Amino acid sequence: MREAFQAHLKEVDDLLVTMAEEARAAMRAATDAVLAPDKEEAEGVVRGDDRIDDGFRRVEEQVYSLLAQQAPVASDLRRLLTARHIASELERMGDLAEHIAKAALRRYPERAVADELAPVIRDMGRIADALAAKMAEVLGSNDADRAAGMEQDDDAMDELHRQLFALMLGTAWRHGVESAIDGALLGRFYERYADHAVNVGRQVVYLVTGATPAI
Amino acid sequence: MREAFQAHLKEVDDLLVTMAEEARAAMRAATDAVLAPDKEEAEGVVRGDDRIDDGFRRVEEQVYSLLAQQAPVASDLRRLLTARHIASELERMGDLAEHIAKAALRRYPERAVADELAPVIRDMGRIADALAAKMAEVLGSNDADRAAGMEQDDDAMDELHRQLFALMLGTAWRHGVESAIDGALLGRFYERYADHAVNVGRQVVYLVTGATPAI
Repeated sequence: MREAFQAHLKEVDDLLVTMAEEARAAMRAATDAVLAPDKEEAEGVVRGDDRIDDGFRRVEEQVYSLLAQQAPVASDLRRLLTARHIASELERMGDLAEHIAKAALRRYPERAVADELAPVIRDMGRIADALAAKMAEVLGSNDADRAAGMEQDDDAMDELHRQLFALMLGTAWRHGVESAIDGALLGRFYERYADHAVNVGRQVVYLVTGATPAI
Repeated sequence: MREAFQAHLKEVDDLLVTMAEEARAAMRAATDAVLAPDKEEAEGVVRGDDRIDDGFRRVEEQVYSLLAQQAPVASDLRRLLTARHIASELERMGDLAEHIAKAALRRYPERAVADELAPVIRDMGRIADALAAKMAEVLGSNDADRAAGMEQDDDAMDELHRQLFALMLGTAWRHGVESAIDGALLGRFYERYADHAVNVGRQVVYLVTGATPAI
């Protein structure tokens, strides 16, 4: 029974890694789609979000049934509750990639990203991708040091977010209100995506060290 | 032991109702603060968010310790997992009220809400308050019908969100880029707050009927 339980826990962990990879791929595609702009790629992100939602439901069901059947305590209990929490962060990351894809579709065939903002959005996409890559990796490895290091990438994202606003609020801005609104919302989606990735990292730190994560 | 367990579950439920009332009060104050604008009221919202975060941690600890000590199954297990989920929604609602208060502070002594947007933001605040009131009530009563009815208030919020954007993107807009960015972000915060309240309602429906909530 103990072995079967560990096998089930492993299944949950594998589901989380798969979800993390899907949330990463979704954001890569969303960034490409909004910068190109590319309608088909954006539609693919919107469709693909169902898969991430489905992963969330599978984790939730597994966690529920393992809690009910096995009544785990201590570290096993912690692993299950943390897995459910992580799955909900990953589900939100998928939603945020979908929001970016929808922003691309809303403005298509125009581009939702004004020319001056494109380099910053591209960099935000890169940081988001680096964070998601680390996140997927630490979910597989449970490397708490590497998970803790994700906070620095998040600082870089916050700095890009400030740059984005500085461009839109500067006197040189010539793209009007609609582009500024698009820019502000896109910036917020990237920033939130990064926050969720960092939250996943904190959950891994908590799982390994027992240190309570900040909310 | 069964009685003690029920008493602990009741404590968790009471914590959730308290959190819901705090998240409601935070949004009322944030709306007042951003419309006035009122610096002290905004600062009060920012300070008060610690209390909501603290409520979240207390629910999390209670749920964890009840799972570990009592190994509940079936409906008791469902109640605990749902409580944890609800607490995290309420914690996010507190954050969103805090974001609105911070927007008020960032522009103070100017007002973050342009004159034309004030009636819509006021209505968004009203709908947010109505949703939060129903949410707190159904958390106490477990009234699934009333919880399901929250979706309609959310439709009203979405409609206000569209109105807000129509005003900012209309040809009559004279407030420039910064006010439009503020308006877009404020609109998003109200809309997300309402989404989280509806999610809490769905969790109550799930708890009472067993019907799986949509993500």
